[in-house]
Amino acid sequence: MGITLGPNQYGKAEVRLVTVTRSGPVHHLKDLTVSTSLRGELARTHLTGDNSDVLATDTQKNTVYAFAKESPVGEIEDFALRLGTHFVRGPITGARILIEEHGWDRIPVDGKAHDHAFSRAGSEKRTTAVTVQGSDYWVVSGLDDLVLLKSTGSEFHGFPRDEYTTLGETTDRILATAVTARWRYQGGAIDWAKSHAEIRRVLLETFATKHSLSLQQTLYAMGEAILQARPEVAEVRLSLPNKHHFLVDLSPFGLTNENEVFYAADRPYGLIEGTVLRDDAEDPGLAWHTLPAF
Amino acid sequence: MGITLGPNQYGKAEVRLVTVTRSGPVHHLKDLTVSTSLRGELARTHLTGDNSDVLATDTQKNTVYAFAKESPVGEIEDFALRLGTHFVRGPITGARILIEEHGWDRIPVDGKAHDHAFSRAGSEKRTTAVTVQGSDYWVVSGLDDLVLLKSTGSEFHGFPRDEYTTLGETTDRILATAVTARWRYQGGAIDWAKSHAEIRRVLLETFATKHSLSLQQTLYAMGEAILQARPEVAEVRLSLPNKHHFLVDLSPFGLTNENEVFYAADRPYGLIEGTVLRDDAEDPGLAWHTLPAF
Amino acid sequence: MGITLGPNQYGKAEVRLVTVTRSGPVHHLKDLTVSTSLRGELARTHLTGDNSDVLATDTQKNTVYAFAKESPVGEIEDFALRLGTHFVRGPITGARILIEEHGWDRIPVDGKAHDHAFSRAGSEKRTTAVTVQGSDYWVVSGLDDLVLLKSTGSEFHGFPRDEYTTLGETTDRILATAVTARWRYQGGAIDWAKSHAEIRRVLLETFATKHSLSLQQTLYAMGEAILQARPEVAEVRLSLPNKHHFLVDLSPFGLTNENEVFYAADRPYGLIEGTVLRDDAEDPGLAWHTLPAF
Amino acid sequence: MGITLGPNQYGKAEVRLVTVTRSGPVHHLKDLTVSTSLRGELARTHLTGDNSDVLATDTQKNTVYAFAKESPVGEIEDFALRLGTHFVRGPITGARILIEEHGWDRIPVDGKAHDHAFSRAGSEKRTTAVTVQGSDYWVVSGLDDLVLLKSTGSEFHGFPRDEYTTLGETTDRILATAVTARWRYQGGAIDWAKSHAEIRRVLLETFATKHSLSLQQTLYAMGEAILQARPEVAEVRLSLPNKHHFLVDLSPFGLTNENEVFYAADRPYGLIEGTVLRDDAEDPGLAWHTLPAF
Repeated sequence: MGITLGPNQYGKAEVRLVTVTRSGPVHHLKDLTVSTSLRGELARTHLTGDNSDVLATDTQKNTVYAFAKESPVGEIEDFALRLGTHFVRGPITGARILIEEHGWDRIPVDGKAHDHAFSRAGSEKRTTAVTVQGSDYWVVSGLDDLVLLKSTGSEFHGFPRDEYTTLGETTDRILATAVTARWRYQGGAIDWAKSHAEIRRVLLETFATKHSLSLQQTLYAMGEAILQARPEVAEVRLSLPNKHHFLVDLSPFGLTNENEVFYAADRPYGLIEGTVLRDDAEDPGLAWHTLPAF
Repeated sequence: MGITLGPNQYGKAEVRLVTVTRSGPVHHLKDLTVSTSLRGELARTHLTGDNSDVLATDTQKNTVYAFAKESPVGEIEDFALRLGTHFVRGPITGARILIEEHGWDRIPVDGKAHDHAFSRAGSEKRTTAVTVQGSDYWVVSGLDDLVLLKSTGSEFHGFPRDEYTTLGETTDRILATAVTARWRYQGGAIDWAKSHAEIRRVLLETFATKHSLSLQQTLYAMGEAILQARPEVAEVRLSLPNKHHFLVDLSPFGLTNENEVFYAADRPYGLIEGTVLRDDAEDPGLAWHTLPAF
Repeated sequence: MGITLGPNQYGKAEVRLVTVTRSGPVHHLKDLTVSTSLRGELARTHLTGDNSDVLATDTQKNTVYAFAKESPVGEIEDFALRLGTHFVRGPITGARILIEEHGWDRIPVDGKAHDHAFSRAGSEKRTTAVTVQGSDYWVVSGLDDLVLLKSTGSEFHGFPRDEYTTLGETTDRILATAVTARWRYQGGAIDWAKSHAEIRRVLLETFATKHSLSLQQTLYAMGEAILQARPEVAEVRLSLPNKHHFLVDLSPFGLTNENEVFYAADRPYGLIEGTVLRDDAEDPGLAWHTLPAF
Repeated sequence: MGITLGPNQYGKAEVRLVTVTRSGPVHHLKDLTVSTSLRGELARTHLTGDNSDVLATDTQKNTVYAFAKESPVGEIEDFALRLGTHFVRGPITGARILIEEHGWDRIPVDGKAHDHAFSRAGSEKRTTAVTVQGSDYWVVSGLDDLVLLKSTGSEFHGFPRDEYTTLGETTDRILATAVTARWRYQGGAIDWAKSHAEIRRVLLETFATKHSLSLQQTLYAMGEAILQARPEVAEVRLSLPNKHHFLVDLSPFGLTNENEVFYAADRPYGLIEGTVLRDDAEDPGLAWHTLPAF
């Protein structure tokens, strides 16, 4: 019986990098969490502990910090591409670079944005996952933990009823979710910052304005609107927890509850995951390899 | 040898309440986490399991939801006072109501704030802790998890050096913290919303503009500025983690690092806690009883 | 330009189920977190909001609870198979059931295990991921968050040095990790409980006794030992964070540190992920579909 | 109007310290999280930024690591006393040292405990909070996150019913909690390890064997049993969340649920907090200053 090493990768996870651009009195901040993973000819270290092919994860971390100094970090997609391209050489045939960007707002003082004082902009993160394999590369960008809620404009009915169904039908409910979105870019010469901003705007506007008969319908509508608006996007994957807000039964207290008082539940939650893609999307190649499926 | 029941309280923690005000097409959202604690003649249940004095925590939860319907929730201080005052009767001689308010922003659509679609406004929370004892009450409000950073305007030097000191002196460092603030109100007829907004503004502006020689100095300056601006505040307590951003040593790579590239550390962190109060502050009474000390 | 719905699934995540078997004075406890995901003909709800094909996630939750009563839960693999097989009918062509089992120990009283009082057995979880597609099924079981440390018997040297390498070589370091393991079963008539117990034992013993020249070598050795011991396992996937324990530099205090005093770091951490498989392993089919890649 | 600096303290929080005792082939592990807070004449740094009285938090961290080398860490109470006593000198008039100890078990190999390989022993932590003020000191030890459940032997009835009460009475329910316990020592020459072990044993046995009519009654019984068994304990404070396990209503599916199938809820939860103390307990002094009240 033979036993073999299968797919594998290794790297440094969650390198916390903050850079300050100080070219003038107005400082600019970048706050990133960078994770690197390398792939390649790694049988020796696995089978014998010979580490001659292993670029130490400590070296990977050092590289992140040094690169942040050698030239401006810029957009996270560009920084990830610089890192990934650098790592792929010799026995390292592939790299996957994940970056999360944490937002900061300038503190307003007397109505004017301060030069060098900032407040954290919430839990939402801009993300990218860049895969480099030889001379090929793929960019999947996205956002995490964008929490949305609409207090009306959402229905849920017409679902089948089996022996375990007790849920009532509703024509008016709260719809709330925490969006994880990933979109795969295609083509070249992409303005990463603008693309991210526009995709985010389209996603928010679609959530707000699309009358919803199911969270699945909302998911598809958001993906479709992004693809219609942004030709540089080949494919959109969304993972949408249905953060249930249950109407509290106030009838024991002689009160009616006309969609006014809700209990926001933690667990369990619905989880709707799906892909919307162009018919003529470029081949994904390794774009999604080792990323969450949706 | 005698053994006695000492101070105690019981209640329902973290009741998640979301209300929607639907008086017209423009909905208004309140998103609260409410914790109730009752105090009083509770020896019977502790010593014998006789529950005749125990208002069930389930009943406390129901009361939160029913009260949210019976009249508008309003400001969290008012809602906490209504709840606390209601609970104190019979064997229940005291109550402490904690409320956290989670913010939501309206989603902009075509540049206009949407009527009923919202996005979560970050991790910062507005808080209140109302204590009712008989016919007395105290209000301690605050905010949690307001994450701030200034990229310059902060020094740290002149500290004593003992046999375990290795830290270098610096005249330019990143100063970052996650503010937990609690302020005790005094006097009557307070506009809770306006007071909260103004205190938050003063706190932010002081953090931004005060040149800092130590985080302690920044803490005191923020407390002092609040007391100077707001006569309704008797006392301010602040808990400020020093979220260290360490300059990365890039010299092994032949690079200088002029306060540009930082490692944001998780643990350990400095923790600066302090109180700033008026000389003629009203007696705190039970305002801080069972709250964190700073 | 055409836009299409791609792969998708939906379900109820994190249904918290606790069952008590009360056939005699000695109670038995099962504490599970169950997540269901269904796949199939779901274009209608995505494209039009017609929910006739959507078994409500609330119904899925009810089914979990009802099945827990209809017959004993048993091993999590069996329970997941019962659920998955039940859901696949009509427009639902596939299901993925994830279960985490949380352990409980009996409280010892006078040296004897108590009949009905328990204490939580730590953060480690036994897991399964069962995929059903039509009449086929696949079982991937595992464990999460098994935290291990060896205080010697681990080296790391011989790695290449480039312009960003500063890490020293070591012949004696702490090696610590939090194991996430997934193994794919093949063949039939498996004793799930015994297989889990034996795989866990082999994994622990290999970690303890294998002298380590790299965490990759330890990973491979653990996978190999499992495959050698358990013919019912086709493939093992491991994700091993390298939880760094850095030697504290005590030389400024005139002290030597002979691998005695360590700083346990949070982030960043190394992350070693890999697969070990039999040459003649059965085809994985959909076993890993939508699961984390390693 | 005068404004004054009130009570304050500062220090280094969550210093992660792991030590290995290597006096022979059998290694011993200590895994601690240490937080130091200093108090004293600190007006200068707060008011002017003059740091001559501020022992840098970085120095405090270094001291923790150096002390761990200078002599064996020993019991956490002793280590905290050594640290606290060291810090109190000059302008520093008081110190509070918090330590959490994380447990590790030896991995069994062929039925024998391994010399130097360990697995993490769950989430429960042994704790101490030592306060030094001048030449006085107080020791409050405890444990955190000890999760307990009994599947019968718990009732809840006889509580008053008001207009908001809907809860039914029960003579058989699951009782589950996550114990946070703190006990204040008095007298001298205490065997910390033995005292902790015995208190933990008494607490567990009382939880298991005390038939419960309310969680308050269980709380008191645990405190009382500890005081009866351990003369070195002056006072016990307990914080006990009531981790609700709700019976699932299976009647819509034609099933009865005889305390067999439960939904383990996250929030809200009951929270029972209380103190049990000796009538002749020594004065607490500053033992509890800035600790959680219960």
